[in-house]
Amino acid sequence: MIDFSCKKFSLDEIIKCSLGLTKAELHMFITLRSVDTKMSAQELAEKVELDVTTVQRGLKKLFELDVLQRFQINLENGGYTYVYAIKSRQEIKNIIMERVHNWVSVVEKSL
Amino acid sequence: MIDFSCKKFSLDEIIKCSLGLTKAELHMFITLRSVDTKMSAQELAEKVELDVTTVQRGLKKLFELDVLQRFQINLENGGYTYVYAIKSRQEIKNIIMERVHNWVSVVEKSL
Repeated sequence: MIDFSCKKFSLDEIIKCSLGLTKAELHMFITLRSVDTKMSAQELAEKVELDVTTVQRGLKKLFELDVLQRFQINLENGGYTYVYAIKSRQEIKNIIMERVHNWVSVVEKSL
Repeated sequence: MIDFSCKKFSLDEIIKCSLGLTKAELHMFITLRSVDTKMSAQELAEKVELDVTTVQRGLKKLFELDVLQRFQINLENGGYTYVYAIKSRQEIKNIIMERVHNWVSVVEKSL
């Protein structure tokens, strides 16, 4: 827990807040971070016990937030699917800290 | 209101949080900031409608936090009393920002 005097944040709460994630999206993020392998929407949906549509939407958002890598897998029938993996700890740290610094600069300008 | 995604802070809430003030102490701080004159504990107590003991304790804390200037007034009977004034906006900004930056560095180390 990180104590900002009267408000306490867990680290995952800071990640959730700074990226603007829903509870489900944070759960997906944490799961991908813990498995350390590439996962499809289908595989992740089973792991987090959410429906595939929700997981696909969440993965798209996390990918656009730049915290996931996406790989295209070509299927035998000519189609393709995606698998996702978490980015490195340092890359994620940079993304979160950029948002925290933006927040600090808003505070600084207001004081 | 400053929006840290899921948590919103007013500027005075950031001051309260970062300095670890009680509601009464924040009220005293805001009052001194608004009057722009030196005030004794007695005068401030009347203004904020709190008892003098609470106000004296609060002024001591705010002075130790370095956000107030204190001036000694010598009395005719040989004793003395104190009057207090708010420090400059820039000085207060520096104190708050130092605490905000400390918080950010804790976050950064944890990520």
